[in-house]
Amino acid sequence: MESLKEKVYAQLSLAKQASRQMALLTRTEKDRALAAIGEKLLADEKTILAANELDIAKAEVDGQPASYLDRLRLTPARVHDLVESLASLAALDDPVGQKMDSWTQPNGLVIEQIRVPLGVIGMVYEARPNVTVDAAAIALKTGNAIVLRGSHSAVNSNVALARSIREALAATELPEAAVQYLPFAEHASVDLLCTANGLVDVIIPRGGAGLIQRVLQLSSVPVLETGVGNCHIYIDQAARYDMAEAIAVNAKTSRPAVCNAAETLLLHRNWPHDYQRALLQKLLDQGVELRVCAKTREAHHELASLLREAQAADWDTEYSALILAVRTVDSLAEAIEHITAHSSGHSEAIVTEDDAAANQFLAAVDATAVYHNASTRFTDGGEFGFGAEIGISTQKLHARGPMGLPALTSYKYVVRGTGQIR
Amino acid sequence: MESLKEKVYAQLSLAKQASRQMALLTRTEKDRALAAIGEKLLADEKTILAANELDIAKAEVDGQPASYLDRLRLTPARVHDLVESLASLAALDDPVGQKMDSWTQPNGLVIEQIRVPLGVIGMVYEARPNVTVDAAAIALKTGNAIVLRGSHSAVNSNVALARSIREALAATELPEAAVQYLPFAEHASVDLLCTANGLVDVIIPRGGAGLIQRVLQLSSVPVLETGVGNCHIYIDQAARYDMAEAIAVNAKTSRPAVCNAAETLLLHRNWPHDYQRALLQKLLDQGVELRVCAKTREAHHELASLLREAQAADWDTEYSALILAVRTVDSLAEAIEHITAHSSGHSEAIVTEDDAAANQFLAAVDATAVYHNASTRFTDGGEFGFGAEIGISTQKLHARGPMGLPALTSYKYVVRGTGQIR
Repeated sequence: MESLKEKVYAQLSLAKQASRQMALLTRTEKDRALAAIGEKLLADEKTILAANELDIAKAEVDGQPASYLDRLRLTPARVHDLVESLASLAALDDPVGQKMDSWTQPNGLVIEQIRVPLGVIGMVYEARPNVTVDAAAIALKTGNAIVLRGSHSAVNSNVALARSIREALAATELPEAAVQYLPFAEHASVDLLCTANGLVDVIIPRGGAGLIQRVLQLSSVPVLETGVGNCHIYIDQAARYDMAEAIAVNAKTSRPAVCNAAETLLLHRNWPHDYQRALLQKLLDQGVELRVCAKTREAHHELASLLREAQAADWDTEYSALILAVRTVDSLAEAIEHITAHSSGHSEAIVTEDDAAANQFLAAVDATAVYHNASTRFTDGGEFGFGAEIGISTQKLHARGPMGLPALTSYKYVVRGTGQIR
Repeated sequence: MESLKEKVYAQLSLAKQASRQMALLTRTEKDRALAAIGEKLLADEKTILAANELDIAKAEVDGQPASYLDRLRLTPARVHDLVESLASLAALDDPVGQKMDSWTQPNGLVIEQIRVPLGVIGMVYEARPNVTVDAAAIALKTGNAIVLRGSHSAVNSNVALARSIREALAATELPEAAVQYLPFAEHASVDLLCTANGLVDVIIPRGGAGLIQRVLQLSSVPVLETGVGNCHIYIDQAARYDMAEAIAVNAKTSRPAVCNAAETLLLHRNWPHDYQRALLQKLLDQGVELRVCAKTREAHHELASLLREAQAADWDTEYSALILAVRTVDSLAEAIEHITAHSSGHSEAIVTEDDAAANQFLAAVDATAVYHNASTRFTDGGEFGFGAEIGISTQKLHARGPMGLPALTSYKYVVRGTGQIR
């Protein structure tokens, strides 16, 4: 009997072989395949939804909460959305083959730096079947092969989706082996994927902090880390009220569960007292629970009954809810110091009319994205104009911040000579 | 008593704090410090050489071979070379602060992608004290802090060099904490360095394959992998003789111990027989041991007594010596297939006058650098015009091929708005 390792490695080897063919595809071939996948998903919709029903039924028996079932569920409308996003992806430029740089050395060697695919991507994710299609499509567009391993609770949905994708690849004469789904219940299949150096070029975990940390710990293959966001809005003494209110309210309340939402508000103590009070009141009116430092509480004792006292842990918490920590600072320097101590390096904003203060903040704060007079909620591939987003990297190597298609590429140097030796 | 972990972490924390100040330095401040380090090394030369004598004496007692002693030894000439390389580094552009890209979104947000330092670099290396100076200087030029841990057999030399560097930093009012040397004999200090996520941003191993593999295995911090080179020269049927001979001889013999030297020669069977014979004879004349496949042996039976038979392992061996594996292939496709199966992805060359064959080779071969009519020996930061070289990356993430100063940087997005919310 074949061991799990043999089965997983057989799939990884097929992906590796297919990756060579994928790297040489033209944009036309890849976009044609994306269109074929869309058509195939629509043609196979009944089968896919029936497979999804099996996963939903199992999750209901297991007593999963409504939010879980919602993420797991496929509907005709959601399949339609997936097909739409395939069409948007096809419309984007193909990064592969792009000349990133070129120059001629004094000895006459012509050196070009050319974008190439990474090779084989391993994707580990939770019970969201849409990731199966999104990830496979982005891999295809960037000329990579992909090995997918979603939560086993979505296995029926994922296997059905992967089958449709592979059949569409085969129908357009692309290597169907370029999309592999690992259907094994055993968690060891994730371990095997994440330690297959030489067969897998990068691992991308998509999901909650727990999943990402587990993958980081067990991987010897490089990981593209996407992570948590403990984002701050700093209202400088020279901030306009309307702007401060709009940005703070937007950053906290427009979508509190996402990583670019604000978790802490820093108020310069010299920002007019009535502005401060109006902003705190506005946030309370929006249903935001405020956890404030002693100075803030003292300055706004008239609101005391509406404010909770912040604990040390509040400065490091990603609430993902309508809760906001509030701290009064004596200076820009103290604001930067607080952010340096507590930021997760995701997105940080200053609101001020003082350009010198803004520039000091933008230079000193070490984060993926630093904002002057705009909401942290803009840290997003779509809002940055990248078209597709693989995730928001919170690491410094390879890719930082919103990752578009180029994040799934590497490069090689193509050197042309006339017999040069050294 | 302080534990080793407490001691190592205390140094890492100092480096992390210093890294914030380092990130904001101007080019002038950094170049001034590089000059000060050079002067200080010359002023402290006697102390440094005396410390080095202690390491040499110990290595002699331990019975280390001459080549080891040579790498370990510092001399006035070598100190002078280090000072020269500091001056060359100062002359290079500062990558930090460089605007890599900028654009305006339809909503008016102005987005700039700005190069920033990585933060804290961990460097693990063997008994070459010159790396202490080179690595600290490159880290300084790129605005990073660095934590150094060389082989303990060079600890006296390294501690003396690090002291001079730190004193020069302090004298130019830069944070001396930006350069930390871990002087502990315990190997556990390397483990602590390589797993200090959050305090260290990247680990760079410098040394042999064994060191690199150990660091890769134990690190949870991302590693910039530099590695082995199993490089091929493919002589196509349409190759000119003079060019083929020059390139094959240069790639094998000019410096056989380095990673961009050739290890296997692939001969198209239709390349004229007398060319093939002349090339094999030339290589033999240069003292190269040839390990040939059965087809090559048969085609050149007149040379049989001078040729060794290649074993399967030969196709995967980095000889780092005057030995060359030789295989006859029936086609360009077979050459590409052989390279795909056996290449370490470092540097690969085709020699041909047929541009279509060259382009097929350059596109299909997956390596850091692919060459048409030039020696693989050019894969080198200096030869690529990068000025300084941190190493040659054989991984696909972050940096591939010769790494210049930008390989030690990341970027951040600086976003300026006028109150935009989402």
